[in-house]
Amino acid sequence: MPMNLIESLHAIVGPAGFVNLEDGEPYLTDWRGRYHGKAMAILKPANTEEVARVLKLCAAHGIAVVPQGGNTGLVAGATPSEAGDSVVVCLSRMANIREIDTANYTVTVDAGCTLARIQEVAASVDRLFPLSLASEGSCQIGGNIATNAGGTAVLRYGNMRALVLGIEVVLPDGRIWNGLRGLRKDNTGYDLKQLFIGAEGTLGIVTAAVLKLHASLRARACAWVAIESVSAAIALLEHCRSACGDGLTSFELISRSQLDVVYEQVPGTRDPLDGSSPWALLLELADSASDAPLQATLETVIGEALEAGLAVDAVLPASETQRNALWHLRHIVSEANVRCGTSVTHDISLPISKIPECLADTEARLLDAGLVDGARFLYVGHVGDGNIHSIVLFPHEVWSTVGDKDALISQIGKIVNDTAVSFGGSISAEHGIGRAHRDELVHYKSDVELDLMKAVKQALDPEGRMNPGKLL
Amino acid sequence: MPMNLIESLHAIVGPAGFVNLEDGEPYLTDWRGRYHGKAMAILKPANTEEVARVLKLCAAHGIAVVPQGGNTGLVAGATPSEAGDSVVVCLSRMANIREIDTANYTVTVDAGCTLARIQEVAASVDRLFPLSLASEGSCQIGGNIATNAGGTAVLRYGNMRALVLGIEVVLPDGRIWNGLRGLRKDNTGYDLKQLFIGAEGTLGIVTAAVLKLHASLRARACAWVAIESVSAAIALLEHCRSACGDGLTSFELISRSQLDVVYEQVPGTRDPLDGSSPWALLLELADSASDAPLQATLETVIGEALEAGLAVDAVLPASETQRNALWHLRHIVSEANVRCGTSVTHDISLPISKIPECLADTEARLLDAGLVDGARFLYVGHVGDGNIHSIVLFPHEVWSTVGDKDALISQIGKIVNDTAVSFGGSISAEHGIGRAHRDELVHYKSDVELDLMKAVKQALDPEGRMNPGKLL
Repeated sequence: MPMNLIESLHAIVGPAGFVNLEDGEPYLTDWRGRYHGKAMAILKPANTEEVARVLKLCAAHGIAVVPQGGNTGLVAGATPSEAGDSVVVCLSRMANIREIDTANYTVTVDAGCTLARIQEVAASVDRLFPLSLASEGSCQIGGNIATNAGGTAVLRYGNMRALVLGIEVVLPDGRIWNGLRGLRKDNTGYDLKQLFIGAEGTLGIVTAAVLKLHASLRARACAWVAIESVSAAIALLEHCRSACGDGLTSFELISRSQLDVVYEQVPGTRDPLDGSSPWALLLELADSASDAPLQATLETVIGEALEAGLAVDAVLPASETQRNALWHLRHIVSEANVRCGTSVTHDISLPISKIPECLADTEARLLDAGLVDGARFLYVGHVGDGNIHSIVLFPHEVWSTVGDKDALISQIGKIVNDTAVSFGGSISAEHGIGRAHRDELVHYKSDVELDLMKAVKQALDPEGRMNPGKLL
Repeated sequence: MPMNLIESLHAIVGPAGFVNLEDGEPYLTDWRGRYHGKAMAILKPANTEEVARVLKLCAAHGIAVVPQGGNTGLVAGATPSEAGDSVVVCLSRMANIREIDTANYTVTVDAGCTLARIQEVAASVDRLFPLSLASEGSCQIGGNIATNAGGTAVLRYGNMRALVLGIEVVLPDGRIWNGLRGLRKDNTGYDLKQLFIGAEGTLGIVTAAVLKLHASLRARACAWVAIESVSAAIALLEHCRSACGDGLTSFELISRSQLDVVYEQVPGTRDPLDGSSPWALLLELADSASDAPLQATLETVIGEALEAGLAVDAVLPASETQRNALWHLRHIVSEANVRCGTSVTHDISLPISKIPECLADTEARLLDAGLVDGARFLYVGHVGDGNIHSIVLFPHEVWSTVGDKDALISQIGKIVNDTAVSFGGSISAEHGIGRAHRDELVHYKSDVELDLMKAVKQALDPEGRMNPGKLL
């Protein structure tokens, strides 16, 4: 019977869509390499119709389905369980650009298109698709939708959710819902696409989407600003918003402790200023008008900030090379930390006003608990989104002396998350829940909210066959 | 038994929250005066706890509940049925501003706050709450959320959905879900608030919300532009977006036929140009920086448009008085039409690229069908949102000769909606479904989509007691 099923699945997707299990490792291991699952079959359907036929067959046999995009998620949301009783459906062969409508500022794409490809396609018609992530070269738009991806352009353009006008979904029973509407206003009943965005594949498989494009950006100005405190960052953000409006595209906070790790670990890097301030900001303005006087605006804003004591020093790059060098300091952070030791990282979000107190509180509680001896506290944050990646970095020589490493990670995580939640924050700003944070979700959500989530899951996937063991 | 129930309801809300049925007319009639319902009781609870107790009691007795805000909706979504077996819960006494967090750019408000009040509160702390509607003086934010309100600022700031960070909801069984999070990023499971936004009160009662604020706008520039065609409007929109980016806040299209009605009916109005072009645009830029050179930008953009043949003539107001006179022409449209006759209005949205062909097609089909003898075709549109209000205006002397008026309205509506849907459009861009368009919803939605909506309704309101007869 299972053999017949496998043969039937093979027949649906054909040889090009059937991955032999001995070649399955990349599909069965999560991005961070912490989870290793098994599958009954790994399929790469060529189109929506094949996905629908696969899901219909799985429904008939009561088989679980694990949707997978570029498999770049950080919470093991696309890795099957160890039981080997599910079918992995990978969307990577579905990579057509279905339609570009420049006047409507939309592009309709298959779920398997990489984010980078969509950025390129948009640029080729003088449009911007603003979503931008570290993994953009390999992550797929279907996965970005299923996880409501964030990234570095959220301050101005919102999360993935804000960039989706319509989707096509194959439901757990194999029916296709065509919600591929390219409309900015549509108040005809429940906005069903919202259910599937961020659902991590637990309600159906997103197979295509109509995405919102923006005007291309043709002018930029950038600055590196030394500041004394997180509170100063928030005050400066407020000032920038008033003075620059929607032109503000990036407002990244980096702690001196994090910069020190970069300078120690990455040859050729050095502080753009004198390196004395406890915090630095990397901020950028951009505009679609090529002659927008952004450099002048930014100089004025920073001059005012220096005068008001919000900033202690600043530098504006004089060339694209200098600008890239500044951004390099921000982008190289993870790599520097890996060289230095083991990072216990967190992805919290907070009301912006609560960031300073919450970070101070968290650090004090971690020190009190005696969990961080020999570790370094690093912070990298998208301040404008209230999203702070707080990192406890254990240098190699310290980490090697830790006994129960998993227990330590989880104890630290509990303090960081407890504190964030006590300030009205979230334990997962942009990474999602997946398999990694499932137990925490139950701990931090109210019973009413969990009940509502379960009711939604029950309504759309009553047999619980879609991506089991993830999220709920 | 029902008497006991009424007494118990009375005890929950007290005398101040209990409306005598003889005074109930304003709560039982829809805004347009087309529907007249009855109710078992009309209640105005003072706080969320009272709403919860009312809903718990109604649940215990199997009684239906009709939530009501400012009762300004255009589709009778807040009017009870004629059966008189439901309880109207009006939120108007819940009008506290719960919290303002300027650094987080958020305000937390009770559902019964009027939109205008929230705009004022935001302005008082140098922030902008951008939602803006004709009924803003009396509509309530809970209703704006329940209907995902649109209005004139959607081009830049999105619909109501884009302005909600968190909500508090009383569920059909009387439980309270506190989802009042003020976070811009939160990927911890299904984004439940999305279910209630735009659900027209059919899944629960929104009792409070955390709203997103923006930077105040301190500079503006405005222009009235004569154009030859709708296609030219779309090309000009594209040009403006590239040249002005997010600074473009309004891009309103008005047909010459509509302007003629205004000039005929409203003394003191006259065309800002020579009145010869078949279409006009009213566009506006705004910026949070008070010194933004918007006037110069707009002059350049319009100069280029004239040169490229996209525009035939244009005028930029030289004073605030002149600017107000231009906007007056746009705002006075409905009043002018009422003076002239009876308007059969529609609220369609389309992919922007499809607007010209769809409007031409609709007009041809209406003429072919012989339904519009003696009528005038008027158009007013938010082009950037793809939202066109197409109006068939029957002058008084023509309308008085029409026999079955309801049949005519519905025949015209069918052609307008059929055509919009055939171009990938929506039959209700911003007004919603309510009671008025419920039959059309069933006609235009796919079975799969209707099934999904019913599954959601069944999951959250299994007894179908929330706002019955609306939407689904």
